Amino acid sequence: MKIGIIGAGMVGGALTKAFAKRGFNIVVASSDPQSEKMKTLIAEAGPKARAGSGPEAAAHGEIVILATPWPQTEAIVSTLGDLSSKIVIDATNPIAADFSGLETGGGASGGEQVRDWAKGARVVKTLNQIGFELMDGPTVAAGAPVMFIAGDDEEAKRIVGDLIASLGFAPEDCGPMSMARYVEALAWLWINRAMLQNKSRHFAFVLSDAQPGA
Amino acid sequence: MKIGIIGAGMVGGALTKAFAKRGFNIVVASSDPQSEKMKTLIAEAGPKARAGSGPEAAAHGEIVILATPWPQTEAIVSTLGDLSSKIVIDATNPIAADFSGLETGGGASGGEQVRDWAKGARVVKTLNQIGFELMDGPTVAAGAPVMFIAGDDEEAKRIVGDLIASLGFAPEDCGPMSMARYVEALAWLWINRAMLQNKSRHFAFVLSDAQPGA
Repeated sequence: MKIGIIGAGMVGGALTKAFAKRGFNIVVASSDPQSEKMKTLIAEAGPKARAGSGPEAAAHGEIVILATPWPQTEAIVSTLGDLSSKIVIDATNPIAADFSGLETGGGASGGEQVRDWAKGARVVKTLNQIGFELMDGPTVAAGAPVMFIAGDDEEAKRIVGDLIASLGFAPEDCGPMSMARYVEALAWLWINRAMLQNKSRHFAFVLSDAQPGA
Repeated sequence: MKIGIIGAGMVGGALTKAFAKRGFNIVVASSDPQSEKMKTLIAEAGPKARAGSGPEAAAHGEIVILATPWPQTEAIVSTLGDLSSKIVIDATNPIAADFSGLETGGGASGGEQVRDWAKGARVVKTLNQIGFELMDGPTVAAGAPVMFIAGDDEEAKRIVGDLIASLGFAPEDCGPMSMARYVEALAWLWINRAMLQNKSRHFAFVLSDAQPGA
């Protein structure tokens, strides 16, 4: 299978090397295909990878992977030529320019609304990310299920962290209540899989140490 | 520690029993504290739990847990009395009335925008949920890292699923491209932990089978 990779930064570079190693035929594109950085990448990736322009990489690939900085993505896509019927993997994230979150995340989270309703209270968002059957010491081969905690009161989060640890969860403070929208989105991935896709209600997310492959 | 639980449905009921078993002193509230369902719950939870009104449960709890249906949450919170300085755990999810997702999720995802820009292409959102160092056969004690896939073309998602499985991921089709906003939110939980909290870049999410505790 031939793959075109648009972007030769950290993600595009890692994918170029990983797929070249597995025998895929790669054309990787960056804004400067003649740069030293690109030459180094191609040397590391070996004979299955070569550099090209964006349109060359797109024409080459049966699968085209977008690994572009979000702010340039629309403009770059417009230069790639005819993508009809191509499989295009969007590996980008629409991160806001100030790195405060996703720029598509509009709308206050439930947690932020509850904080506003419960005036004066020290509101903590958590215990929303797993089915009720698994809230009491679930047995998970891979380790304690992660349970994110968002809120604006550090002491309250520590107390709540201990509380949910007593249920068997691995508490994970992810920051202020503005993070609740992401915690609620994770919950929706659980709910959607369990209740709309009907795959199972007996699963959990585990946050695990991970080391780069050899 | 005394806990007030607002809501005696599936989540509120599970938490009542789980915390009562651990010796916490619980008052649990529902719209009908005299119902047969509530009597059964209290009987199952044992002597550490009793039923009460919402304001009673809120006054009782050093920690108050909201386990209410989202559409009633604002009105219920307004009845709970003074919550100043209380720790309030928001365990709700702001699910849209038609169960299509979160009602707070406004704004098209990056994936949906890319789909619109790459006209005619079969766009698949994935490979955005983990750091570049971990994209080539990462070693994860807990099992293969989950990699969600969202898109509107079933065949494209199957091909992409095989492709990312070759990198060592557990591909997980979560539905149409409208799900990309949740996949991107999960990515933000990774990015935020790695890059804003500076905890580590060497971690991954694993989707694991989980069984209810004994």
